Amino acid sequence: MFDMFSQYVETSGLVGALLTTIAFLPQVVRTWRQGGEGLSYLMLALFLAGTALWLFYGIALGSLPIVLANGVTALQVLIMFALKLRGARRREEVK
Amino acid sequence: MFDMFSQYVETSGLVGALLTTIAFLPQVVRTWRQGGEGLSYLMLALFLAGTALWLFYGIALGSLPIVLANGVTALQVLIMFALKLRGARRREEVK
Repeated sequence: MFDMFSQYVETSGLVGALLTTIAFLPQVVRTWRQGGEGLSYLMLALFLAGTALWLFYGIALGSLPIVLANGVTALQVLIMFALKLRGARRREEVK
Repeated sequence: MFDMFSQYVETSGLVGALLTTIAFLPQVVRTWRQGGEGLSYLMLALFLAGTALWLFYGIALGSLPIVLANGVTALQVLIMFALKLRGARRREEVK
């Protein structure tokens, strides 16, 4: 009985992680297309620091959903960082 | 010794929650200003469903950082939903 409940809990966490990670994808695609001019470095840095702390928290708690969600989101944020840097360099070249 | 470690862990989770929630704020402000035309209902729905599942997961785990972060984010997403609906009605009126 308890095992079934904790399975529901784990599944909820995993599906929640999947959904919030998928919901983040359009932002990555938009950054790819537009070069990330609309994103601030401050926001990206906050997100990156936040997901890093979440990762530590998730590992310490032994929570797979937290580790997965924040591992993937940290990767997405890093990709957006790189895209914004590339976009900024391109805009500089165009000038 | 263990208590101190678990305090670090809890603090990491709370600061992580604070940072990722703050990093989300510019999106809310932008939606307020622009009426949410750039956001898709699908993305908002995914985010809302995701944070709801995270909330359940956090409550079941008894994790304050997860509950706080996803409670506030769910609220932010609801606000953006409402702003987008209002923006869509205004754009309709302008036509």
